[in-house]
Amino acid sequence: MSGVKRPTDKHLMLFTGRANPKLGEEVGELMGVEMTPSRLVTYANSEIYVRFEESVRGSDAFVIQSHPSPVNEWLMEQLIMVDALKRASARHITVVAPFYPYARQDKKHLGREPISARLIADLYRTAGADRIMSVDLHTAQIQGFFDGPLDHLTALPVLADYVAAKYDVTKMTIVSPDAGRVRLADQWCDRLHAPLAIIHKRHDPTVANQVAVHEVVGDVRGRTCLLVDDMVDTAGTICQAANALLAHGAEKVLCAATHAVLSDPAAERLNETPFEEVIFTNTLPIREGVDVPKMTVLSIAPLLAQAIHEIFEDGSVTSLFNGTPPA
Amino acid sequence: MSGVKRPTDKHLMLFTGRANPKLGEEVGELMGVEMTPSRLVTYANSEIYVRFEESVRGSDAFVIQSHPSPVNEWLMEQLIMVDALKRASARHITVVAPFYPYARQDKKHLGREPISARLIADLYRTAGADRIMSVDLHTAQIQGFFDGPLDHLTALPVLADYVAAKYDVTKMTIVSPDAGRVRLADQWCDRLHAPLAIIHKRHDPTVANQVAVHEVVGDVRGRTCLLVDDMVDTAGTICQAANALLAHGAEKVLCAATHAVLSDPAAERLNETPFEEVIFTNTLPIREGVDVPKMTVLSIAPLLAQAIHEIFEDGSVTSLFNGTPPA
Amino acid sequence: MSGVKRPTDKHLMLFTGRANPKLGEEVGELMGVEMTPSRLVTYANSEIYVRFEESVRGSDAFVIQSHPSPVNEWLMEQLIMVDALKRASARHITVVAPFYPYARQDKKHLGREPISARLIADLYRTAGADRIMSVDLHTAQIQGFFDGPLDHLTALPVLADYVAAKYDVTKMTIVSPDAGRVRLADQWCDRLHAPLAIIHKRHDPTVANQVAVHEVVGDVRGRTCLLVDDMVDTAGTICQAANALLAHGAEKVLCAATHAVLSDPAAERLNETPFEEVIFTNTLPIREGVDVPKMTVLSIAPLLAQAIHEIFEDGSVTSLFNGTPPA
Amino acid sequence: MSGVKRPTDKHLMLFTGRANPKLGEEVGELMGVEMTPSRLVTYANSEIYVRFEESVRGSDAFVIQSHPSPVNEWLMEQLIMVDALKRASARHITVVAPFYPYARQDKKHLGREPISARLIADLYRTAGADRIMSVDLHTAQIQGFFDGPLDHLTALPVLADYVAAKYDVTKMTIVSPDAGRVRLADQWCDRLHAPLAIIHKRHDPTVANQVAVHEVVGDVRGRTCLLVDDMVDTAGTICQAANALLAHGAEKVLCAATHAVLSDPAAERLNETPFEEVIFTNTLPIREGVDVPKMTVLSIAPLLAQAIHEIFEDGSVTSLFNGTPPA
Amino acid sequence: MSGVKRPTDKHLMLFTGRANPKLGEEVGELMGVEMTPSRLVTYANSEIYVRFEESVRGSDAFVIQSHPSPVNEWLMEQLIMVDALKRASARHITVVAPFYPYARQDKKHLGREPISARLIADLYRTAGADRIMSVDLHTAQIQGFFDGPLDHLTALPVLADYVAAKYDVTKMTIVSPDAGRVRLADQWCDRLHAPLAIIHKRHDPTVANQVAVHEVVGDVRGRTCLLVDDMVDTAGTICQAANALLAHGAEKVLCAATHAVLSDPAAERLNETPFEEVIFTNTLPIREGVDVPKMTVLSIAPLLAQAIHEIFEDGSVTSLFNGTPPA
Amino acid sequence: MSGVKRPTDKHLMLFTGRANPKLGEEVGELMGVEMTPSRLVTYANSEIYVRFEESVRGSDAFVIQSHPSPVNEWLMEQLIMVDALKRASARHITVVAPFYPYARQDKKHLGREPISARLIADLYRTAGADRIMSVDLHTAQIQGFFDGPLDHLTALPVLADYVAAKYDVTKMTIVSPDAGRVRLADQWCDRLHAPLAIIHKRHDPTVANQVAVHEVVGDVRGRTCLLVDDMVDTAGTICQAANALLAHGAEKVLCAATHAVLSDPAAERLNETPFEEVIFTNTLPIREGVDVPKMTVLSIAPLLAQAIHEIFEDGSVTSLFNGTPPA
Repeated sequence: MSGVKRPTDKHLMLFTGRANPKLGEEVGELMGVEMTPSRLVTYANSEIYVRFEESVRGSDAFVIQSHPSPVNEWLMEQLIMVDALKRASARHITVVAPFYPYARQDKKHLGREPISARLIADLYRTAGADRIMSVDLHTAQIQGFFDGPLDHLTALPVLADYVAAKYDVTKMTIVSPDAGRVRLADQWCDRLHAPLAIIHKRHDPTVANQVAVHEVVGDVRGRTCLLVDDMVDTAGTICQAANALLAHGAEKVLCAATHAVLSDPAAERLNETPFEEVIFTNTLPIREGVDVPKMTVLSIAPLLAQAIHEIFEDGSVTSLFNGTPPA
Repeated sequence: MSGVKRPTDKHLMLFTGRANPKLGEEVGELMGVEMTPSRLVTYANSEIYVRFEESVRGSDAFVIQSHPSPVNEWLMEQLIMVDALKRASARHITVVAPFYPYARQDKKHLGREPISARLIADLYRTAGADRIMSVDLHTAQIQGFFDGPLDHLTALPVLADYVAAKYDVTKMTIVSPDAGRVRLADQWCDRLHAPLAIIHKRHDPTVANQVAVHEVVGDVRGRTCLLVDDMVDTAGTICQAANALLAHGAEKVLCAATHAVLSDPAAERLNETPFEEVIFTNTLPIREGVDVPKMTVLSIAPLLAQAIHEIFEDGSVTSLFNGTPPA
Repeated sequence: MSGVKRPTDKHLMLFTGRANPKLGEEVGELMGVEMTPSRLVTYANSEIYVRFEESVRGSDAFVIQSHPSPVNEWLMEQLIMVDALKRASARHITVVAPFYPYARQDKKHLGREPISARLIADLYRTAGADRIMSVDLHTAQIQGFFDGPLDHLTALPVLADYVAAKYDVTKMTIVSPDAGRVRLADQWCDRLHAPLAIIHKRHDPTVANQVAVHEVVGDVRGRTCLLVDDMVDTAGTICQAANALLAHGAEKVLCAATHAVLSDPAAERLNETPFEEVIFTNTLPIREGVDVPKMTVLSIAPLLAQAIHEIFEDGSVTSLFNGTPPA
Repeated sequence: MSGVKRPTDKHLMLFTGRANPKLGEEVGELMGVEMTPSRLVTYANSEIYVRFEESVRGSDAFVIQSHPSPVNEWLMEQLIMVDALKRASARHITVVAPFYPYARQDKKHLGREPISARLIADLYRTAGADRIMSVDLHTAQIQGFFDGPLDHLTALPVLADYVAAKYDVTKMTIVSPDAGRVRLADQWCDRLHAPLAIIHKRHDPTVANQVAVHEVVGDVRGRTCLLVDDMVDTAGTICQAANALLAHGAEKVLCAATHAVLSDPAAERLNETPFEEVIFTNTLPIREGVDVPKMTVLSIAPLLAQAIHEIFEDGSVTSLFNGTPPA
Repeated sequence: MSGVKRPTDKHLMLFTGRANPKLGEEVGELMGVEMTPSRLVTYANSEIYVRFEESVRGSDAFVIQSHPSPVNEWLMEQLIMVDALKRASARHITVVAPFYPYARQDKKHLGREPISARLIADLYRTAGADRIMSVDLHTAQIQGFFDGPLDHLTALPVLADYVAAKYDVTKMTIVSPDAGRVRLADQWCDRLHAPLAIIHKRHDPTVANQVAVHEVVGDVRGRTCLLVDDMVDTAGTICQAANALLAHGAEKVLCAATHAVLSDPAAERLNETPFEEVIFTNTLPIREGVDVPKMTVLSIAPLLAQAIHEIFEDGSVTSLFNGTPPA
Repeated sequence: MSGVKRPTDKHLMLFTGRANPKLGEEVGELMGVEMTPSRLVTYANSEIYVRFEESVRGSDAFVIQSHPSPVNEWLMEQLIMVDALKRASARHITVVAPFYPYARQDKKHLGREPISARLIADLYRTAGADRIMSVDLHTAQIQGFFDGPLDHLTALPVLADYVAAKYDVTKMTIVSPDAGRVRLADQWCDRLHAPLAIIHKRHDPTVANQVAVHEVVGDVRGRTCLLVDDMVDTAGTICQAANALLAHGAEKVLCAATHAVLSDPAAERLNETPFEEVIFTNTLPIREGVDVPKMTVLSIAPLLAQAIHEIFEDGSVTSLFNGTPPA
């Protein structure tokens, strides 16, 4: 036979964007793998430049980037990194986007709107991504926006184990802050064996100008109420819910969510609302100037590290769910 | 200037598959447009053959097909029709699928599952579809599965106008049969100015083997309860919900849903459950042998006819929603 | 150098659809490889659901499916399996379709027809197939419908070796049942060193209403006539051919074909026609209720097993042809 | 409504490559449409340069090119013309390739071969072609190689009408020069109401080194034999067939084929063989130096002109077949 | 014939992003076409939302956006607008990007870099753009990055006519600020019939640490020197060139460039350098706080308006070049 | 776990087209790898046929082809080879095109032109190429025409080391033959520490009919002038430049270029011009009949061999540049 043969190695390489380099580095430390040195620059005219300092040819590249504000910057940086990897002959490129950008624009609410979450999936594909890894997508249907594997992780075990270790679960009621999050709250109930309540915003049909009433559905009096959500952005909904719960006799109110978007005036609102504790993960970095003393931030890095390990070793990411698949 | 110029006509042509030809014909009659004669045959070995009897060159083709059981047959027939149109130089091909097939498999609930609803969108694209028109998708995110325009219609005004004309709305409560349909129920409330209730299946955490309890959330005693859903398949959920409502003192129970899938044993269950009336549209044909005396089937054809008209005339489909966009 | 390196394994996994699981299992047994456990369900509303019970990440997946009636069901099941594999990060997906569906609609016979055989290739591609393996395509040009490798196997050696072992080849004449199969018959002649005859359906130009005459071209008197074809569907052509041969003095008539489609009334016709023996392979399962005592079914599984082995080990499939490439 | 509206014109423009500009010009004259002036140059280093002298924006462009030797030159010229049209905003581009290049490499005869006829279709697609028009494809399956409309014309009526006007059809027998062209010969029989014969090259199984015998199947003694084929390349097969017919008592032998490839030594062979007349069309230009006195070349231009007219006016090309669809 | 026919209108609609709405409005005013009302919002978390207030179905949409800093914001806004148009059934979408983003990263200068200018073209394509219109691309090869028509306009006639009307061209020398812009300078010479000079940065080979010397090539003593470039970013090169010219005896120095990027410290440098006048167009808006008294900004809007008009009316954009195609 | 595992080998295979088989063989010898035996035939009708004599399944295939005149032949041969490799299941296909065809048509100089260099990249992609390797592209932007890795090598170190070993570099001046090659000349200066000069063709604005004057910019009197370019085609520019240098007092003139296109009348011109030596590489074979005694041809094979080696072993091609990246 002509030609020449060699045994094949696979080569995992980790890359991080500049939105939250600490997260990538923590993942690398947990895996015992150094970040591949990369030159990432924003020029004076605001264009981004990328170069990798080592050969990436033939590698299985994982490009870790967070997507806090300004999200378009960090998205473009990641797309440019993926393009550079593709053109430098990386073998397989996985976008690691713990907080999926534009996840809430996942359908046309009205006519003549974009479906930006699909656009994002297509942009990643176009740049050269072979796979996406993300945590607690706003709706699980976003998986179907990408034409390829999307490893959908959930931070629920991380958050729930923390809560279970610190609080008396027998006194706890899980509360969905609106009708759209009941499925997520259900999963918490299953995991913590706790009862459920719902905050329901209802338009009062007897009043002309559609005043919204925050009904509390379920028994919360004297209970430790845990409000759960996938993300907290301006914190309006969650703080109104907390106040409604306290007004209905809840003993204390906690909040747990995966993504700490915390746009203004979230910090102010969270501080003004008598939460016992608000618990997030670091899928997004906490912005400078956000100072919420009762906030706890758990690291998502062990979950990402384990998932990257399983992908590289052809293992099962499903096994990480620990009984709780993503909502 | 060389060459030759002509003023351009556009040419709308309607085609229907064999799953429910009456629906297509009704649309055609409403529009004053005859179905283009087509030869559709299933050979002895189960393969489907298609041929159009007229030139379709340059046409704006609308291919209307229902997707009742056996859904794979009707899907393949429609794909083959689209392929034949593409190869015969139709200018623009719109798939009209009032009931979108495989809509419920819109995400990976577990690992190693397909996302069949995305696959369907891709199969339509591959065959040659430029646009999809559908009614009341199971989740609105399915819009994002298609790489092109998807006109998402809603039958809610059709159903609601019928209900409002026949029943005393001031005595009516809208009921979501489970936590996943609350958004849809909300839209009914807004339209009928009626209050809301929810049937909530909850796992009792105090009991070992996870018995599901059907809680009724909201005030239903003495009310006319209208259970709403996008589709009724085996009717298990909706009938359990109806019984729970009656057990909690509802005066009477109605049911309204867009898609009458009605797989066995739906007819038996609907007949055994003391519904006042169950109301569907004909996005799907009622199967032979389904005999439910209290069932009313409203026609979706005027909605489809109007939408096809607006598309052909470059008008707005959004304007058809009549204040109620799809859930 | 940053990152981490590992030696690479490749991992062959076998999957089978439900059309003919015995074929897949036979292939697996011959290879010493167990089928990967899969959950395949058809719901009450006729939609198909798929889930694999083990991680398939990084695997070289071979998805074996037969395509008997109802062909659209089995096709959709296979497409959904491929989609699930793609989304679960299988490394390379080969569709094994021993009988290629819709192979006879491989061109536009008239205007405004589909080319369904091309559509099938595109549907497989869209679902995620990287390669197709098939046996005795109706026309070899179908290879060009797929944008990638298509391993085209032939059952001729399997059939011919059986015939040669059982019958006196020196008394045998190979007969093409119509003008379209002469190339195939030629290959049988080359392999068995037997003479050729042709059944030619000719329109008699002297008669107004175009009666077809079955001319027998070549010497068949006193010969053992072996009619050969790629498939037998309703068996009309082959039985008319057999009767014509006997009417022209053939001593006995055999029939050999790769694909036993056997749509109604094939069994009846085959039983009514005085064939000595009809010989097929099991690329398609023999339908329930088809009872043809003189029918022999040879297994295609060893051929498939060997081809899958060669593909996995980067060997040559051409070498399997044993001197006889597909017609 | 914002914006501005205008009635739309469509604008047919004709372009011709340099392989056979006369054919294009003849088409243009028949349609009353001038060729769009184009600059087509081959540089000293053999690269081809193209520029159109008028705006082609918004046009329906038909790019006519013949594909005689050197076929790769004329193919590349046509691809470059299509690319220039795409980049200059032509609205719709139709490749007119009366003789489809590489049509005979339409399958893998052996392993590790290209399927060049599919590659050609893909190259046209990549350059920007929306549709292909061709005449008498070597196999009709090539239609399925293009992902879009392929208008497949046939020159059979042109050839047959000429033959019928000049010869006594009642004394004529149609002859297929080998087993692969019997379907084409059948169509001639149907059109001319003439009987059929076949030249069959058979390997004599009783002789070791596989001598091919040219059997004449059917009654040719005293007949005017018309050998039919899609193309004549080196003329070996057709001349051997003619000699066999004469040896079996044919009174005279004619030959009719669509494509006059006529590679060396076709002219010599045709001149040496006692044909009464050989009839071709001008899908390919007759090469310089080919001097065959008994050769008649009929023009394909009226067929092309009529087909382009029908396409531009959204009419039916099928209606041109005059009862005889392509083989 | 079945179906229904209508004469076709085409419908031009203009849209503008928020980077420089004045430019779009000026274009609209010149064309007598109102901007289509659009809702463009940046949410608190930095995500962008788009909705059009009118039906855009069937329209020829032109999406005008400038790309000043922060360029990634404006790029994403334009991509999201294009996605919304595609999903709302616009017939044809043209991206109008007078200053093409990331144009300078048009090749890999080193290994493992992106080619961001190609990525941008692919992102536009993926979002749904059918065509791009841009002005004075950094390198003309960027046209080839887009798989479709790219209308490449030049502002040179606008700039040159201004210069010729205001200054004595007979005393003028055109100067390229470095070796890479000589082709552009040549075009100015041809248009103004002026002589050429070049500033050449040369590494002195006799000095170890590679000091760059600014040589002035050509005769500039006593001349009015016009420095020309496609863009001025931080103004370092152009100001060094101006000083070198003055040091070599130039009487006065002007500068003309299409794109006023003017990143810090451009304004400071331009003010410190004794330019007679610096002349730009408004392809980019002048940033707040940039105060350069001797700066003149000419409007590109008439050029864009005329080009959009020609495209809509299927005219020639080449005719706008006025003898000077883009460099 | 089900299935079966094997360690993976990678398998490099080398293929060469017929344009310059010696180059491929030299590469193979340097790597110790035999060319894979291939059957490459041009039929009498000018179509090309390809078949590989060994299994190529799973291989990393490198397809080496030169592109001298007739370039369209060699291009098509390479495309057909790539198609055959794709269909035979090669794992990864790299096109090695040392001289990239149609590189000079890399933009639209005027309206309604092709961008043939982009078309070439797309044709390679369509045929099945995963990567391109080329030497000294006419413009580096061509890298961005290919949607994948393009390894861009430079022959400058090969040429420069030869020059430096043979001539006294301290007496040498590097000369760009026109304004478009100054960047390349700069790189030579950097490598040889030599000063720069430019030949500048300027239109004299004072003369009506635009006479071009060859100005020599820089000090050449008494110097050894080295004219550098990427390619020499008809040699008109380079010979005019050489004469101008000698007329300005240069002591001797050399010429170095990567690609020896040498179309007529290049040989005649080179012989008539008093060059001391003209130095090329063998990216293109020297045509029969080109006899230029003072021509030296250096082999590019070691560079290609090393680059193929690095690609196969996942090393860095950048490291081959030896300090001089491609211009």
